Amino acid sequence: MNLFYQPLLQEGIYYLDPDESKHCTKVLRKKQGDTIRLTDGLGFFYAATITQPNPQRCLFNVVEKTAAPQKDFHLHIAISPTKNPDRIEWFVEKAVEIGVDAITFVECDHTERTHLKVERLEKLSVSAMKQSVKATLPKLSGLTTLQNFLNGVDDAAKFIAYVDHTNPIHLQQAAKPHNNYVVLIGPEGDFSKEELDVCLQKGFQKVNLGPSRLRTETAGIVACHTLNLINT
Amino acid sequence: MNLFYQPLLQEGIYYLDPDESKHCTKVLRKKQGDTIRLTDGLGFFYAATITQPNPQRCLFNVVEKTAAPQKDFHLHIAISPTKNPDRIEWFVEKAVEIGVDAITFVECDHTERTHLKVERLEKLSVSAMKQSVKATLPKLSGLTTLQNFLNGVDDAAKFIAYVDHTNPIHLQQAAKPHNNYVVLIGPEGDFSKEELDVCLQKGFQKVNLGPSRLRTETAGIVACHTLNLINT
Repeated sequence: MNLFYQPLLQEGIYYLDPDESKHCTKVLRKKQGDTIRLTDGLGFFYAATITQPNPQRCLFNVVEKTAAPQKDFHLHIAISPTKNPDRIEWFVEKAVEIGVDAITFVECDHTERTHLKVERLEKLSVSAMKQSVKATLPKLSGLTTLQNFLNGVDDAAKFIAYVDHTNPIHLQQAAKPHNNYVVLIGPEGDFSKEELDVCLQKGFQKVNLGPSRLRTETAGIVACHTLNLINT
Repeated sequence: MNLFYQPLLQEGIYYLDPDESKHCTKVLRKKQGDTIRLTDGLGFFYAATITQPNPQRCLFNVVEKTAAPQKDFHLHIAISPTKNPDRIEWFVEKAVEIGVDAITFVECDHTERTHLKVERLEKLSVSAMKQSVKATLPKLSGLTTLQNFLNGVDDAAKFIAYVDHTNPIHLQQAAKPHNNYVVLIGPEGDFSKEELDVCLQKGFQKVNLGPSRLRTETAGIVACHTLNLINT
């Protein structure tokens, strides 16, 4: 089932962008009068009928607008980018598939990457949303400092993946269902002691993600899936 | 912390292969008398002292052999390879990081790939084991037919990820902790009705992996993490 994306549907933009127009008319061979399904990435699905199968600008009429089922939890993952860009791209795709509401890329003391191709990550996010037939596009925030992130952090249950001699509890036990969560995932070199202290002062709770030593992007997915699972 | 791998340690092979010898002596600059940590991939960690830091064949003496903590569950994932080889390679790396005991690649009616670079997958598996500091190398089995797999399937709690109108329960609810599990993950086109019937006859239980529509490799990771989580 193909899902198309038009973020401005609620503003009355009833055509597909050139890439999707081409895919719809040339690859899927959709004709005038055919029905397509769309999302605005804002929580709604649409059924529409093609009025002009133009490969540059495929026009349609909306037949039906339906709200996607509401989730009763909100998940924001703040994660250090990885040295290898493929790994963070992979994280974005998988987090969107499994279910995430916001992703912020945080530059930590031990982060080995100082720039991100946010536009590419946005594209991956859109295609993962379409692939997993979701109606909400997660909010992606480009690289910011940990301090900036902490200053603007949501009112939520806050967790930081950090294992030390105080042996924190597992995220699965620490998090209550039906809540808003923010989870901080550090770089390969982990958070510095100073960063940890600042986060604890800001009300973050130390948690572990299980017995395995995980790469940054894997820790991000494990945290994402753990919180989706306790809300299943 | 660097972990080296020598599968024949228990047979008295006390040297590293050329790649690891080079990494140990040239990259990490280990000298005679330095200590290294190894695993045999069979459940044991070793502390050893370098006797000859030869970049082709680094020799060592084992100082200490310790058994890794025993798990009280066994997880075997049987999964269809993906059309794109990167996705199945990614699955192997992440499953090994999170924790898996055996992976079998199963050719299903809708599988779009008929060959696998098993050697490459083995290498990825070894490096993921080392990366996540594990002492057990999962058993990787190359592409086999679903029928062959079912004929030799382990005595275990058997699950097949398959969602239909009978709306199966979530793997998290269906699986009991501290058990042996086999989970079947199908291709993008899912299992055929005939395949599903054969699996049900063989005692597989239909389960879902949550509300999201997941790609094959993501479903594999989600199943892997779900079963690790209920055993945490």
